[in-house]
Amino acid sequence: MDSYQIISKQKQFKWGIAGLGKISNDFASAFKNLRNDKNVIWSIAGKDEERVKCFASKFKVKNVYTTYEELAKDPDVDVVYVANLNPQHFSTCKLMLENGKSVLCEKPMCMNIEDTRTLFMIAKQNNLFLMEAMWSRLFPVYKELQTALNSKVIGDIYQLTANFGVVIDAPRVRQKEMGGSVVMDIGVYTSQLAMLVFAGLQPLQLTALGHLNSSGVDQSYSCLIKYDAGQTATLIHHSRVKFDNSAFVYGTKGFIKIHEPFWAPTKITINDQTLEFPLPENDSTYNFINSAGLHYEVDEVQRCLKEGLKESPSFSQLDSLALAKMNEDLRNLLGVSISENDQ
Amino acid sequence: MDSYQIISKQKQFKWGIAGLGKISNDFASAFKNLRNDKNVIWSIAGKDEERVKCFASKFKVKNVYTTYEELAKDPDVDVVYVANLNPQHFSTCKLMLENGKSVLCEKPMCMNIEDTRTLFMIAKQNNLFLMEAMWSRLFPVYKELQTALNSKVIGDIYQLTANFGVVIDAPRVRQKEMGGSVVMDIGVYTSQLAMLVFAGLQPLQLTALGHLNSSGVDQSYSCLIKYDAGQTATLIHHSRVKFDNSAFVYGTKGFIKIHEPFWAPTKITINDQTLEFPLPENDSTYNFINSAGLHYEVDEVQRCLKEGLKESPSFSQLDSLALAKMNEDLRNLLGVSISENDQ
Repeated sequence: MDSYQIISKQKQFKWGIAGLGKISNDFASAFKNLRNDKNVIWSIAGKDEERVKCFASKFKVKNVYTTYEELAKDPDVDVVYVANLNPQHFSTCKLMLENGKSVLCEKPMCMNIEDTRTLFMIAKQNNLFLMEAMWSRLFPVYKELQTALNSKVIGDIYQLTANFGVVIDAPRVRQKEMGGSVVMDIGVYTSQLAMLVFAGLQPLQLTALGHLNSSGVDQSYSCLIKYDAGQTATLIHHSRVKFDNSAFVYGTKGFIKIHEPFWAPTKITINDQTLEFPLPENDSTYNFINSAGLHYEVDEVQRCLKEGLKESPSFSQLDSLALAKMNEDLRNLLGVSISENDQ
Repeated sequence: MDSYQIISKQKQFKWGIAGLGKISNDFASAFKNLRNDKNVIWSIAGKDEERVKCFASKFKVKNVYTTYEELAKDPDVDVVYVANLNPQHFSTCKLMLENGKSVLCEKPMCMNIEDTRTLFMIAKQNNLFLMEAMWSRLFPVYKELQTALNSKVIGDIYQLTANFGVVIDAPRVRQKEMGGSVVMDIGVYTSQLAMLVFAGLQPLQLTALGHLNSSGVDQSYSCLIKYDAGQTATLIHHSRVKFDNSAFVYGTKGFIKIHEPFWAPTKITINDQTLEFPLPENDSTYNFINSAGLHYEVDEVQRCLKEGLKESPSFSQLDSLALAKMNEDLRNLLGVSISENDQ
């Protein structure tokens, strides 16, 4: 045990980043919030040379590549954060795993359940860590939520409502060929919450109604999940109007409110008690709300790698597969043609 | 005109009340809030003699009956408030209308659309006023809502969310033979709001999932309405847990929040502006939240009778028929058997 601990103390985790869009900028910015110096952005890869150079300069990254293959072959990289366009996740993750890299992949991991299953199989074959970057699960608020759910402080739970409405103009979300989909982009957050709140319950029925844009991309939807013991989850999403983006869990003895933004929250109210978990503040700048909390992910991946885990208990292989199933079911219900241009 | 006005000044509206449950108590209590003495509770009828006596004593009512027939024959009564059990509304309203009384009938007016249509036909044949008591529509907050919707101060509207969750133990709502139904009891309030917010839009699809109790009575449900121009209404109901019962209308330039209780509200937020309309306070006691606002209904009925209207523009015959259709559709979707014991 002693020798193991000495090794773990010395170990520095060398990160690669594949895909250098807005979320990668936020991910790299959040490294400032880490409470140790065990993680370093060692190498990056993107297809746009200018963007690669700019990113490298901003975050002082030594090794820069313009192909993912080069990053995959970098012998020093331990773990790769895959954050290119959704339809590219599968091939990029596959490439990294087959070259011996652990992977943290942005949500949604793949465009369908079959590819998701394949990736976990490849990770297993190569004895590597693979996690879908469901950062919500790692916020302290979600730990409080989990504790409150387990302790039944709000009694028997019967209803979850979660709202995610933001105005999204990004072509990435509006265009089919870029993997655009409100289900895939923001729906994953309400789905994961339903999976967490009603863990262990059997969903009996799922229904959804929504609107597709002129390209056939889902741009808004509401969905209902009925469970087998009187429970319901009601999840509402929009990309054209901004909602009050809170989530509520209602029980026979009270309620839990996860304050806006419920997917990256710093505040939770459990019956009469409100708890706050402020995010670190420094000179980092972010594109998305509360991205400062992306460092929780880095901490979790480091912990898992250190402990030799191949998946994170916070969002496991089974969670990713259940989410992929939900994504497929929802898009089918909404009438999205999911065969073409998705990969 | 002069003579008409003199007559109208002298005219006192003599109310009858059929059915003396909790809501009738609140309705009578709200008479104290009227700003004129033109309305008087002249006669009451209930099947339980003790309850009739007690009600008469409490509200100083001279004429008491233990059959609805006697009330219907009372020559002095102008208008009857029908508030017995839901399955009894049809026959009681019919009786009153056929005996020349105008009628204000508690929601839901009837257990199905056919009976609703029949009642309006009888009212028309007898040249009488008939209104479903959708009191929400008469609150000042709803007038502000209507103005805000018309002025497009929140831009193009894309989403309505309305939550109605209260713990209901009343046998009336739990038992089929008493007309029990969450759709009929509380669902009518979210439905009328969707009808108001998306007036003039074509609903394309309606879906709902819910839970029935062991007697086959709907005890919770969520429903989605998809309209033909990108809009959605998401309506959530429960009788086992208490919700945050606010409603939100989201547009491209902001939002409107109708604060809890959205069905009888005193507070509305339109973008950054919050308006409050406190209810009268006196020594009246009520069974239901904000029942003090029931006096708005009495005012409206008086206005309509005075002006010779046969329906209220605040909740018209067409509104009642649309609501009855929605009730039927929802209960069918939830798998409620609506043929038996409903009348």
